[in-house]
Amino acid sequence: MFFSDAVFAIAITLLALEIRLPGGEGALTDDELSRQLLSLWPKYLAFVISFLVIGTFWLGHHRRFRYIRRYDRRLLWINLVLLLLVAFIPFPTAVISEYTNRTATIFYALIMTLTGLMSGAIWWYAAWHDRLIDPNLDRRHRRYECLAPLVIPSIFLLSIGLAFINADLARYSWALTAPAALLIR
Amino acid sequence: MFFSDAVFAIAITLLALEIRLPGGEGALTDDELSRQLLSLWPKYLAFVISFLVIGTFWLGHHRRFRYIRRYDRRLLWINLVLLLLVAFIPFPTAVISEYTNRTATIFYALIMTLTGLMSGAIWWYAAWHDRLIDPNLDRRHRRYECLAPLVIPSIFLLSIGLAFINADLARYSWALTAPAALLIR
Amino acid sequence: MFFSDAVFAIAITLLALEIRLPGGEGALTDDELSRQLLSLWPKYLAFVISFLVIGTFWLGHHRRFRYIRRYDRRLLWINLVLLLLVAFIPFPTAVISEYTNRTATIFYALIMTLTGLMSGAIWWYAAWHDRLIDPNLDRRHRRYECLAPLVIPSIFLLSIGLAFINADLARYSWALTAPAALLIR
Amino acid sequence: MFFSDAVFAIAITLLALEIRLPGGEGALTDDELSRQLLSLWPKYLAFVISFLVIGTFWLGHHRRFRYIRRYDRRLLWINLVLLLLVAFIPFPTAVISEYTNRTATIFYALIMTLTGLMSGAIWWYAAWHDRLIDPNLDRRHRRYECLAPLVIPSIFLLSIGLAFINADLARYSWALTAPAALLIR
Repeated sequence: MFFSDAVFAIAITLLALEIRLPGGEGALTDDELSRQLLSLWPKYLAFVISFLVIGTFWLGHHRRFRYIRRYDRRLLWINLVLLLLVAFIPFPTAVISEYTNRTATIFYALIMTLTGLMSGAIWWYAAWHDRLIDPNLDRRHRRYECLAPLVIPSIFLLSIGLAFINADLARYSWALTAPAALLIR
Repeated sequence: MFFSDAVFAIAITLLALEIRLPGGEGALTDDELSRQLLSLWPKYLAFVISFLVIGTFWLGHHRRFRYIRRYDRRLLWINLVLLLLVAFIPFPTAVISEYTNRTATIFYALIMTLTGLMSGAIWWYAAWHDRLIDPNLDRRHRRYECLAPLVIPSIFLLSIGLAFINADLARYSWALTAPAALLIR
Repeated sequence: MFFSDAVFAIAITLLALEIRLPGGEGALTDDELSRQLLSLWPKYLAFVISFLVIGTFWLGHHRRFRYIRRYDRRLLWINLVLLLLVAFIPFPTAVISEYTNRTATIFYALIMTLTGLMSGAIWWYAAWHDRLIDPNLDRRHRRYECLAPLVIPSIFLLSIGLAFINADLARYSWALTAPAALLIR
Repeated sequence: MFFSDAVFAIAITLLALEIRLPGGEGALTDDELSRQLLSLWPKYLAFVISFLVIGTFWLGHHRRFRYIRRYDRRLLWINLVLLLLVAFIPFPTAVISEYTNRTATIFYALIMTLTGLMSGAIWWYAAWHDRLIDPNLDRRHRRYECLAPLVIPSIFLLSIGLAFINADLARYSWALTAPAALLIR
């Protein structure tokens, strides 16, 4: 699925286009430019988080597709819906890098949850009755691949709940995706 | 044809760049941001429709090229014109997500009709006298591939006619592409 | 050289991003939108010309690389300079779609001439003393591949001369690239 | 690693999007447009430098990955962090093409240093105890590949020091990357 790889690569690279200097006021002194560059930290952070989350989704997608031996029409459509969500991610990333209130937090976490679940849905569909996957894959690995895609969406789903208590706390909880991404393969 | 895949992937991902918050008014409350995010629904809808239609064109393109065994110069040029139309789709998508009048509806449907027909033209040219396709492809499948690319353009062509009666009705008729895309392979 | 294909594909698809409605004045009537869409014809034309010229360069690049058997460091650098020019093309395309005076005409034709020559330089370098190309390639074909990359740059170089007499005439002369592209392979 | 190639290709092509005419003042005479095109030289220069530096990083990345036989999870993560930095480069390029003071110079050189070091880190990690690389690679070549990725970052690191004395001098020192890139493979 070279096409999928390209969509992931484009979406992940377009994230950086959101980072721009406010600009337009002619020459800036060193100090003013330093302040402007530092003041963009919420955008840097949103870029880094979205990049690593999409990167994790891609690593999982890439690895799981190595065990998928055949495609059918429905699998291609599930994959297309996943790519639709991946291509959409630059927008919630732009929203969360601009606003940090409850709405922005929930919107971002919601899209990430859906994308993660759709990434898992490819495997769940393909592994269902072993129809489309490599028959030699051992049972434990197959079960592992069924559960692994739930980890990242669970963190984001939890953060939606947290956002109703405190939006800042919800966003801090996203930091849990980093150790999770390093632990799951 | 890796190059074609890349153009499809880029065009489909650039669609999301059209979705932007009106923005620029400083901090928004949760309610204001919710309203802004909800008010973007015509853009979300245009994104989803264009994404799925381009996705359908790509699935057909990808599948048909599996049976094409040889290229000649003209086939490469027909393919290049198809890619030109695919690369152009983000513009009518931007127009229809901004305006919903008759002109915008016809413009969008026209580009989609042309893109679909050009997607079919690749097969019609390649299968003509069986010159460039796999000779072992059975007759029924070959005929199927001749007719399948007509389905989506027919719906958009019909909607151009409908637009002269009622532009809203014409746009609603595009919903027919969803079951059509699921039925044809 | 998958990387080259991707740069060509991205540059060719980004061309369409230049096409935008002037926009911003709220709801437009059907007639106003029609007029706006029609008034963009210089942008459509610039998009189509640049797309087809880049497409022709890519077809040549792709075909010639089939006969190139080995790479050396210098060939990779010549290719990188070609890709630099290809990635730059969206800018002169934007200029020519905005301005139609002598400067814009010469600027566009100059970049196209350089890109075409650099595309040829890859072959001239690789075929020099037959060092990097397929040794079984017959002499006539090899000579053909040496001359073919000169056709498009010659037209653009000629148009730079014409632009000093009449800028409109110079731009009309670019239409010669269409039959040229269909004749050369 | 097709995904890496695509991210490099997209980042390198997006660099050109930063080049825009100030525009918006209606028809320009030939002289005014010439002056505007010439006045963009800092943007052209930033584009060319960033393009060639990313190109050099890609050539190194591509070559080194030919000797890497196996991946593990950590290698994929180091690669993902490299791609994050590559995808980020269009932003410092935009900054340096707008401002030429000390802050902009240091910011650009810092990102380039980090990207170059991360590009080397892939090899250092893979070649450590020969775990992931081709065991037949001779020792001299392996050592060469360990040192080569240090050249470009050293130049940029040196320029950060120079920037505290004179920002212009620091930027001139970047010209050293051109002969360095031609000498190292």
